[in-house]
Order: sequence, then C-alpha cells, then structure tokens
Amino acid sequence: MIIVIQCIDRVGLVAAITGVLAAQQLNIISLREHVDKAENRFFLRVQVEQEVAPAPIANQLRAVLPPEAVIVVNPLPEKRVVVMVTKEYHCLADMLIRHYFKTLQASIQAVIGNYNTLQDICDRFEVPFFHISHEGIYKETFEQKISEQIGQFTPDYIVLAKFMRILSPAFVAKFPGRIINIHHSFLPAFAGANPYRQAFERGVKLIGATAHFVTNDLDEGPIIAQQIIPVSHSLTAADMMRAGKEIETAVLAKALRLVVDDRVFVYNNKTVVFE
Amino acid sequence: MIIVIQCIDRVGLVAAITGVLAAQQLNIISLREHVDKAENRFFLRVQVEQEVAPAPIANQLRAVLPPEAVIVVNPLPEKRVVVMVTKEYHCLADMLIRHYFKTLQASIQAVIGNYNTLQDICDRFEVPFFHISHEGIYKETFEQKISEQIGQFTPDYIVLAKFMRILSPAFVAKFPGRIINIHHSFLPAFAGANPYRQAFERGVKLIGATAHFVTNDLDEGPIIAQQIIPVSHSLTAADMMRAGKEIETAVLAKALRLVVDDRVFVYNNKTVVFE
Amino acid sequence: MIIVIQCIDRVGLVAAITGVLAAQQLNIISLREHVDKAENRFFLRVQVEQEVAPAPIANQLRAVLPPEAVIVVNPLPEKRVVVMVTKEYHCLADMLIRHYFKTLQASIQAVIGNYNTLQDICDRFEVPFFHISHEGIYKETFEQKISEQIGQFTPDYIVLAKFMRILSPAFVAKFPGRIINIHHSFLPAFAGANPYRQAFERGVKLIGATAHFVTNDLDEGPIIAQQIIPVSHSLTAADMMRAGKEIETAVLAKALRLVVDDRVFVYNNKTVVFE
Amino acid sequence: MIIVIQCIDRVGLVAAITGVLAAQQLNIISLREHVDKAENRFFLRVQVEQEVAPAPIANQLRAVLPPEAVIVVNPLPEKRVVVMVTKEYHCLADMLIRHYFKTLQASIQAVIGNYNTLQDICDRFEVPFFHISHEGIYKETFEQKISEQIGQFTPDYIVLAKFMRILSPAFVAKFPGRIINIHHSFLPAFAGANPYRQAFERGVKLIGATAHFVTNDLDEGPIIAQQIIPVSHSLTAADMMRAGKEIETAVLAKALRLVVDDRVFVYNNKTVVFE
Repeated sequence: MIIVIQCIDRVGLVAAITGVLAAQQLNIISLREHVDKAENRFFLRVQVEQEVAPAPIANQLRAVLPPEAVIVVNPLPEKRVVVMVTKEYHCLADMLIRHYFKTLQASIQAVIGNYNTLQDICDRFEVPFFHISHEGIYKETFEQKISEQIGQFTPDYIVLAKFMRILSPAFVAKFPGRIINIHHSFLPAFAGANPYRQAFERGVKLIGATAHFVTNDLDEGPIIAQQIIPVSHSLTAADMMRAGKEIETAVLAKALRLVVDDRVFVYNNKTVVFE
Repeated sequence: MIIVIQCIDRVGLVAAITGVLAAQQLNIISLREHVDKAENRFFLRVQVEQEVAPAPIANQLRAVLPPEAVIVVNPLPEKRVVVMVTKEYHCLADMLIRHYFKTLQASIQAVIGNYNTLQDICDRFEVPFFHISHEGIYKETFEQKISEQIGQFTPDYIVLAKFMRILSPAFVAKFPGRIINIHHSFLPAFAGANPYRQAFERGVKLIGATAHFVTNDLDEGPIIAQQIIPVSHSLTAADMMRAGKEIETAVLAKALRLVVDDRVFVYNNKTVVFE
Repeated sequence: MIIVIQCIDRVGLVAAITGVLAAQQLNIISLREHVDKAENRFFLRVQVEQEVAPAPIANQLRAVLPPEAVIVVNPLPEKRVVVMVTKEYHCLADMLIRHYFKTLQASIQAVIGNYNTLQDICDRFEVPFFHISHEGIYKETFEQKISEQIGQFTPDYIVLAKFMRILSPAFVAKFPGRIINIHHSFLPAFAGANPYRQAFERGVKLIGATAHFVTNDLDEGPIIAQQIIPVSHSLTAADMMRAGKEIETAVLAKALRLVVDDRVFVYNNKTVVFE
Repeated sequence: MIIVIQCIDRVGLVAAITGVLAAQQLNIISLREHVDKAENRFFLRVQVEQEVAPAPIANQLRAVLPPEAVIVVNPLPEKRVVVMVTKEYHCLADMLIRHYFKTLQASIQAVIGNYNTLQDICDRFEVPFFHISHEGIYKETFEQKISEQIGQFTPDYIVLAKFMRILSPAFVAKFPGRIINIHHSFLPAFAGANPYRQAFERGVKLIGATAHFVTNDLDEGPIIAQQIIPVSHSLTAADMMRAGKEIETAVLAKALRLVVDDRVFVYNNKTVVFE
C-alpha cells in the first residue's frame, strides 16, 4: 500500500503519520520525506507492506494533519490516461506498446489527434482514436471539442505526446497538474520552435528533452524529468532531430512511470520527485 | 543534526524514532527509510533542523529500539582518514586538493605509501607521509608496521587510493567496514590484474571503476559507487588506462563523499546508499 | 554513396583509394580511417557526395588494393533482417515500430519464435511470424528448420531479439558475422543465466546490456555497443529486470543502427565502430 | 606525427594530401575528415606512424592545397598555456595537479589572478602567480597589464579557469581562437549570472557546464565540450553549486585535452571536434 501526503510543514508530522500506521500494525517498507524550507512545505511517500481498506486510514491521517493536507491512500495501481498527438509517432507508439503488454502502469483510454495521421497505429492496438481537427474553427471551439471528448474518459492524466498546438489557459485550468507534456528540448535552452535547428546552429555538444506538467506557459511548467544525449559536428540537423526523438521517447516514458507510481509532487512551479 | 540507525526490522520503528524527536520539538527536514525484506533489516537516515546534545537523544532512541540497534546521533561533520598509496597519484592528489581547500568533508591525518613516490606531493600540502616498504620483510611484519602507524591517527576510515598490495584477512579484520578501496574496473568484470588490458583485448565499449568496502576478498566487498565511461577502438590500452584513472578519481571522490556524509549502510555484502 | 574497405595495412592505401575517387570527380564528405597496428589491419569508411554506379568504382578500387581486401561500394540503404525471439517482447516491439514507421533503416522480412507468444504482435504489423518449437526434437533438427526458414528470406542480418536458446557452432557457421545478439548484461560481467539476479545479489550500482555479433561462444562475440543505467538498493530483482529491458531495447536499437549504416567492422574478436 | 588542415572544400583534397604522404612512404594510422557542406569547409586530422621534419611536408602540402589553407604539421606535443583566475580554485587546482604530474599535455607558464586568493596553491607547485587587481583602475588599463604579462610567456592558449571579469572585444581580438573559457552552465540555458540559483529556482533535473572559445560575447563562443549531471529537489542551491564545480572541472579538463591534442577546429561560431 502506498500513501502520499503533502501539507504545510510543522514539528511532529512524521511521528503523527507513522504513529497512525503503527497503531494498525502496518509495517513500513520504504519511506521518503522532504521539507522545502523556503516554502515550509512537507512531502511524504510511504510504502506499507500490508494492504488494508484506504478510507479508515485516510480518516485517521486526516485527524492528525493540517486541514489543507492532501492525502492519497492506496492510489489505484493503474491510472487512466488520454493521449493527445499531432503527427509524430514515436512517443505514442512507445506508450501503445507498453499499454498492449501491460507494462505502462497506466491504461490508455483514448488518443486524440488534431490530424488523423496516427489513427492507423491506434487501430492496430484497438485503442480508440478521435480525430479533432483544429482547422477552420475557433481555438475555443477546438478545445471545447477536445475537453468534451476527454470528459468521456475521466482520465487521471492527459499526456501530450508531441501534441503541437498551444493550449489556452482556460483549457489548462480544467486539468490542473494533470497535463503532462514532452518538450523537444533541454529546457530552458531552446524553448520555442525548432529547437534541433537551434541546437545545430549553436553547435551544442548535447541535446536533451524535458517532460513537465503543463501550466499556462507551455514550456514553463514544473519539470518531471530531463535527459540528454551527446551530439557532434557530424550530425546534420535531421540527425539531431532523429536523436532527439529517441530521447523524447525515453524521457516521457520515465516521467509517466514516475507520475503513475505516485513519486512526483508538484508545488508552485517545482516538483519533488522521490525516484 | 543527522541521525542514522540500523537494526532488525519490526512494526512501529519509524513511529518510535520520530516520536522521540517530536517530543523534543525537533523538526525533520529529510528522512529516508528502507527495509531489506530478504534480510528483515531496517535502515534509516534522518536530518533534523535543530542541533542538540546527541547523548540524551541517543539514549532515548536506544530505549525504543531493539538492543542490537546501531545508532549514531550527530556524527562528526569531519571524519578522520588515513590514505594508503603505492605509486599512482591521481586519487591521492584529488583528495589532497579537496583536503587543502576544505571541501573533502574529511581530514587527511596521514598518507602511508609502500613506495616513497608520493612523498613530495604530500609535503607540498603539509600532510604527513610515511614510507613503509613491503620489500624484504614478511607481509605480517609489513602490515604490523602499517597498523601501528595507522593507530597513531585513530582514523574513522582508511582509504586505499590505488594501494596495490593485497591486505591479509588479519589486517582487514582490524578495521571492519572502515577500509574503502577503489578498484580499477567495473566489478565484477575484469576483477584482478591489468583490467584495462583485459578490457582492451575484449574490445568493450565501456570501462568503469568501483569503490567498495574491503572485506577479506579484496575485489568482493560491498559496493559503494560505480561509474563508467565510453571507450572505442581508437583508444590504445594506454589511453584506456588514462581514461580509467579519470573515472577512478571521480568514483572514489563520490564514494568518500557519500560515506563521510553518513549516507552508506553496510549489511552482509551489500550497501544501502541514501544518495 | 558509402564505401567501406577492410584489408591488410600498407603504406599508400588512403592515397590509392581517394585517388580513384578523385579521378571520378567524386567529392568526399566524410572519411574515417583506422589502423589496428597489433593486427596490421586497415579499416576505412568514406561517404561521397555523388551517387554513381558501384561496379566500376569497386573494380577500380580492387585494382589498387591487396587481393584479400573486402570492398563494399554503395551498400543497400535498407538491409534485410530476420528476427528470432522467444517470449520477451521489448526488443522485437521496438523494432516492429521502427519497421512500421520506416525508421529502422532495415526491413524485417520475418520473425521466428520458438514459442508463439509474439505471433499476435507480429500479425498486428503484418510481419510474417513462424513458430518453430524446439520441444521434442533434436537441436540439430530445430536449427535445420530455422535455417531453412531463414533461407527463404536471404537476410543480410539475423537479429536475436531475446532468443533464449543457445545456437550450435554449426548454425553460427552458416551466418558468419551476420548474427547480432543482445545480451542482458554488461559483458563480461554476469555472463550466463539470470544476470539481474546476480547483479541484485552482488549489490552493483550499475546494470547494463551488450549487443554483439554471435560467434561460437554465445556471450563472447565482438561487442558492437554497450550501455548502462544506475540502480540502487531500492530496486528489487524484478525492478532491475524491468530496467534491464529498457536498456536492452536501447542498446540493440543502437547496435542495429550502427550495423545497417555500415559503421561496424569486425576483425578477430573485436569491432571497429565509426560512430 | 599529427597533421591538421582546414580549407575551402574541393574535389580531390584527401587524395592530394595523402598522396604527398604516400610519396614519402609515411603510413597513416588514423585519419578523420569532415566537410561542412553549408560552409563548403574542409577539415582533416591525420596521424602518421613516422616522425619526419615538418617543414618539407608542410611545403609539399601547401603546393597541393588552396592558398588560404591552414596547415599544421607535427604540432608541439606540449602546448604553452597561461591560466587566468579569480577566487575559485577547483579548475586551477585540477590543472596544477596534471601539470605537476606531466599529464596535462600542456605546460602552465603562469597564472594571473585579479585576486591573490590562489597565490598560495600556485606557490606550492612553483608555478608563477601574478596578482593583477582590477580595482581602482580603468578596464583598459587592467587588460593592458594582463596582456603585457601574458606577452612575457607567449602562450599557445589562455585558459579562463573561473576568471569572473568580462573581457573587452579589444582584449579578445589580441588572442583570436586562443582563449578557452569554462562557463558554469549548460549553455545556452542559464547564460549570465548565478546559473545555479537560476537552475535551482527553475527546478531543473540536470545541470551542466560548457567549455568554449571566447569571442566578443563571453557566453556565445564556439562550444568545445559540454557535460551534465543529474540533480534533484533534495539539493540546495549550494549543493548545486558544489556539484557544478565538479562538472566544470571535468569539462574544462576534457576540452583542454581535446584542444592541446589538436582535435578541435573552429570555423565561424562552431567547432569540429574529432574525439
């Protein structure tokens, strides 16, 4: 059983929380606690050997924690996700494979594309694909259609797997802390369009990718994971893009694994990640 | 203040330990706990905001823990180390620099060499160097001289910074869990002599180094840290050795930092490292 | 146009080779040459801007090179591969995705499995799958059936994507330097069965994977690529296996890309890789 | 013997160059050639087995190359460097150690500091230290004193080992392509002051360092080498700075090794690095 807690810090929180568990004869296998002193914020993730009914434990924990505490007891082992895409396949295909072989630790409810390019690959895995074009309609209407479609599937998370349209603050506000994006760059370097071209022209020796939660500034949300790969003068801009796709796929997969495993806490514009 | 505890696992340990701290109004900034189920072994490291007298806390903790528990409260910020060397300078020089600039988190009490090759570099940093040759004397006598010399300095740890003589079980037994060695290989690959030549001949694409505690089998102790670097066909065996020295220096520095920061627990032939 | 050459080294080879190209007004974009002095062996890969008929160039090159020289001019951009599997999907699925999206730089002609576990995923990508069971028949017969099946497809390379049967010297001899295997370990460490269990029990801090050409000793062929990932005490043996599958997939993909891009030379038990 | 050549690209250059070498019965051990098509620029580095007088070879090469070709035959094995520092020791100390043990492949002629903080460490290695303060004088005067001092030592390269003053275009113009800087950031991210604070506040999961040649924009010169290390929420801004110093030291050491080994070509604002 996993329990995650975030709240204002104060003396005695760990003792209070683990006291509740000990009283139930629950054995702690692994515990991570971190306090952000600057924010006076408390983050805890504990794994308990036994499985018991979550509700009573949650209530007992609530009784010993600050009223604003966010407490999740025994989160679902398998989260529900909706994936949004445009035309690039690499991140989606990797997720579909893991979904199909039951190693995603999440279940892909549906895929929404603003082009139908990736319909076929979804069909091959019998994952519902919905083509919602952005063309010829107001952004407001486009996003309205998307959120209605998403609404059908009540996902825990929405994964932007190379979805190339900027989402409006209104849309983002509907899913606070639940939209995960893979940015094709080692943020904050090369934010914005065509980062591989930028990297190529700058002659950098490393390129990277960044997975982050989406806030109202697409490239500025809390960072979940980042990785890089070395590159050299011998790569063309196209080679860099290919290499970039590899790293994007790896980083998004890692970020999603951390998130669905309840190892990522968000506060202000940062994350606490108990890897 | 740092507190580290290792003992048999049982229900309620974290609650008992943190209860003691809470009763003293001590605020936990960071806590890591791990249980090795196979061994039923409990490992905990906690950082507390305040500084208080260690003895009373230690006694209160002892009262709530199994009798065999190992409890260290507020370990010295700066450990005492004696370094043993042969002829290679790279690891020693890196330690001397950090020692000199007070970033080693440890204090080098003395350096013992079975050759005098590295006397001069120690002199330049005013670190006592003792030349104890292994030549023409029994190993028993050689080790006796070394342990007497070490005894003068009551070190917390003995660092084998490319010390190329195999130490006897009798010697190792005098300093259980306190001798740190850097092995010039990614163990368990290429254990034994001339690993770079072996790696070169095998045509591997990565070479590495391993820092470990010394047990009676020199290359088989609990591993603290390992790192690798990529190599290619274009490197000669000599190039590989040079590259290997870089990685040896980095790994030993990392391992020492983890150990002196009380982040490494040893049990049986393994380590728990709270990085 | 790519030209790769391997032969005995002697003075003037690069001048002779590039002289032939210059006489044809061919412009060299990229050239890599390496001599293994110990073996007195010459390796060269050159990329020429223009595309011309290979045969005449090959003949002119042959005229200026030692008779035993291996010369390949303008290798096919897309190699033909047959994949052999057992039950694990991760490497095969990654290859199928790249095959489907035309980014494998190779074409998967067929998949042969000694179990039918992976029939379905192949069907979804319309790649022929042949189930050839090893059960109840002599190894000789088993391998005979496999090589007949392979024969249908005249592949350039045979990729063992987690094929868990040991192949006989007789089988390997049929495809010299053309069988690529992914070994679930950072060779030479943990050769043999269950390396993740071994790694877990040894308490290593890194695990890796190795892609190599198969020779008569399954785990001892020339190494093409190796990578590692850090692991810690917090991983179970099962976690290590999962992490291992990720790195196996990445390493095999990298190795295959290098091989089909004609960047890998094999000589004796080593490789020269012009990355 | 090493030969490096940079010039406008045209058909037949490799044949012409290697023809000259073959005529002298010189055997090529290793050759790297790269053409930047966008710039129509040719870069070549060749290692020849034998050692012969450079002048005649250089003249013969000049006869077959474009007039503007830059040709260096048999560069000095040991380059002369002057190091400029402020107060931080880590990069300088690493260089002094390598200098002392003759593994720098370069000779430190002198160290110039705008503070005298690092006088003592230089004295310990008998390397001349010159304190030239920037205080109370015009920048012009300050730089004038520095370049006069540098002039005494006719260095091949000037290494800014954490020299924290911005150099004027006039100063930089005196040493074109010969000033190497280590930037405490993964450029282009976090250019400018206090990058670790910026990285900490942004909550990035990787921090890095960049070694580059200095042009008139201090942080925008051609990049020689970059590396990163993972970081996490558990690091304070001070921890990040410590980690950053480690990576700065490693990257500057690598960059200097590449440069003094004549593996780095500069053209426009990029580098070609034959690792």
